[in-house]
Amino acid sequence: MFGANSHLAGTMAATVTISIDVMGGDTGPEMAIGGAEISLIRHPNIRYELFGEKDVVEPVLEKYPRVKAVSNFEHCDVSIAMDAKPSQALRRGRKVSSMWKAVEAIKNGSSDVAISAGNTGALMAMSKFCLRMMAGIERPAIAAIWPTLQGESIVLDVGATIGADAQQLIDFSLMGSAMARALFDLNNPTIGLLNIGVEEVKGLDEIKTAGAMLRELTLPGFNYHGFVEGDDLGKGTVDVVVTEGFTGNIALKSAEGTAKQIGEYLKAAMNRTLIARIGYLFAKQAFDRLSDKMDPRKVNGGVFLGMNGVVIKSHGGTDAEGFAAAIDLGYDMVRNELLKKISHDLENYEQTRPVAEQPSTES
Amino acid sequence: MFGANSHLAGTMAATVTISIDVMGGDTGPEMAIGGAEISLIRHPNIRYELFGEKDVVEPVLEKYPRVKAVSNFEHCDVSIAMDAKPSQALRRGRKVSSMWKAVEAIKNGSSDVAISAGNTGALMAMSKFCLRMMAGIERPAIAAIWPTLQGESIVLDVGATIGADAQQLIDFSLMGSAMARALFDLNNPTIGLLNIGVEEVKGLDEIKTAGAMLRELTLPGFNYHGFVEGDDLGKGTVDVVVTEGFTGNIALKSAEGTAKQIGEYLKAAMNRTLIARIGYLFAKQAFDRLSDKMDPRKVNGGVFLGMNGVVIKSHGGTDAEGFAAAIDLGYDMVRNELLKKISHDLENYEQTRPVAEQPSTES
Repeated sequence: MFGANSHLAGTMAATVTISIDVMGGDTGPEMAIGGAEISLIRHPNIRYELFGEKDVVEPVLEKYPRVKAVSNFEHCDVSIAMDAKPSQALRRGRKVSSMWKAVEAIKNGSSDVAISAGNTGALMAMSKFCLRMMAGIERPAIAAIWPTLQGESIVLDVGATIGADAQQLIDFSLMGSAMARALFDLNNPTIGLLNIGVEEVKGLDEIKTAGAMLRELTLPGFNYHGFVEGDDLGKGTVDVVVTEGFTGNIALKSAEGTAKQIGEYLKAAMNRTLIARIGYLFAKQAFDRLSDKMDPRKVNGGVFLGMNGVVIKSHGGTDAEGFAAAIDLGYDMVRNELLKKISHDLENYEQTRPVAEQPSTES
Repeated sequence: MFGANSHLAGTMAATVTISIDVMGGDTGPEMAIGGAEISLIRHPNIRYELFGEKDVVEPVLEKYPRVKAVSNFEHCDVSIAMDAKPSQALRRGRKVSSMWKAVEAIKNGSSDVAISAGNTGALMAMSKFCLRMMAGIERPAIAAIWPTLQGESIVLDVGATIGADAQQLIDFSLMGSAMARALFDLNNPTIGLLNIGVEEVKGLDEIKTAGAMLRELTLPGFNYHGFVEGDDLGKGTVDVVVTEGFTGNIALKSAEGTAKQIGEYLKAAMNRTLIARIGYLFAKQAFDRLSDKMDPRKVNGGVFLGMNGVVIKSHGGTDAEGFAAAIDLGYDMVRNELLKKISHDLENYEQTRPVAEQPSTES
């Protein structure tokens, strides 16, 4: 495993090729290419496939000769707008846009993982269309890294689709478990199903059914903990929290909003009196550590799971440092063979299913 | 309106009678009766109807003579366990438990509002059974007070039921609007529907339908803002956020968990070095203000809406100060005529419905 030392391991390691839609994001190619340089310094074995409009990309590439030296750049006429509807983006951007080309590079075998800071819905639609779902997985999920009191957890789905039946929740559990083993260097990451702590309420049938099925599941490396509640997310009670996309998205944004809110309270409190400002100066290093811990750029990057290829969505409003975190995440997913781990688990899982549900081999 | 000055207004005001299930909560009657004393000092026009087991309650009442002087106490043989299932609690506790009696006091006209720190599911089941739903409201909701950068908002439903159709979301919006006018001294509180920021996703039909209907609605004092996302909760983008109970509960606990997590980070950062500890001493007053702002006891109390009577659920794990906040909330709801405001809005709303949907008056 690599983790914090991956820049050391990287110097001796095989090349990882990363395709980037450099047109995605709120501010243009400077963020993506600047981020590519930061990641390249950390992982010298990276190579890039860059896609975008040459008039804006080429001048930026000139400013980053290190990135230019390890990149193929391909001009694309079409860029997907941040507010484009997925269906419209797919219609206009299929086969020609920088976003499509970055994803297609995985399918062509010229890239190991694709990154874009563009429109989430469009990126998901293109990824599904171009890469297709893995055998045995019906719906994709977006997995987010969630900072906790224990370190980090994985939460999925945070918004790929809305609603999930019991089988889809189990698929998410299997993919989340594989991702935790790839990312956290754990052999038996714990899995929790997000629920509300009331036993006797209607409407939880799919979660209850999924829970009962997961409790019965015996798979190497798979470790079902049980139900968890909203406050278990921050506690880090489990390594992987599984939920459907609507709830996951609301939980994620609600937590992000709370973190920002407390940051504002803290700033206001420390600015209010002279003595508080003096205290702040003394404690500045401690505050810097805190800001660092709360820095959303550190956990930038949603991992699209369930397709024949790994696509990472960076926040559109991040900067080069944040984009580099998304690249690093993609790099780790490739180095630690996420897709292979998922496929392997899915195969094992298929074998645990009751014989009656499998196609007969006797006839 | 009363708000922060309600203890002044209270001295000249009519009596408010509050019934309390003193057996609810994790620690016993000391919390509820201690809280009753704190609220009584703030609002001398309160009278109490107390229900519980005399062997444990009477010794505590002796320690709070002020509360004893303004209270009727009634012994109840049965107390509802914190982990009782709602159906079981209803079977064992109907007509005889302290929880039931506190709620029934509203129905009997001997109390204006009921408070319990007991089991949420049991309290909701008893409230529905005893008080019945208001005409025109199909499902109850639990409304929570949410601290925001702008002050406070109301969020509902945070867990009364799971799932809600468009009409139920509209009912929640009307009740939330009435509560905001009762609590915040606003004439036109803004209402938002919680959603994820993706236009083109399946499964949001009930939220989209509710949004379209709310946009068309013209009612005095009703002010629909549109969709809001998870991070708008902390920002205080609207005065009332409406969602179904599963999502609302996860959002609430996820935010609470994040606040606690950051509190822990802050504590650890300030303890880490001598110079940080010195800084902390200088800035202590600022930190105290911050803790005060983040103190969950200050916003203790979920308001059960939709029934013929107001019931307040206090956290089971709070202390006397937190319980007093729940009593104050109930007091404000009575003084500002929450139920009358809701009924009034529901009547106005019924009149806005297309004629075709109303029972014919011509036949």
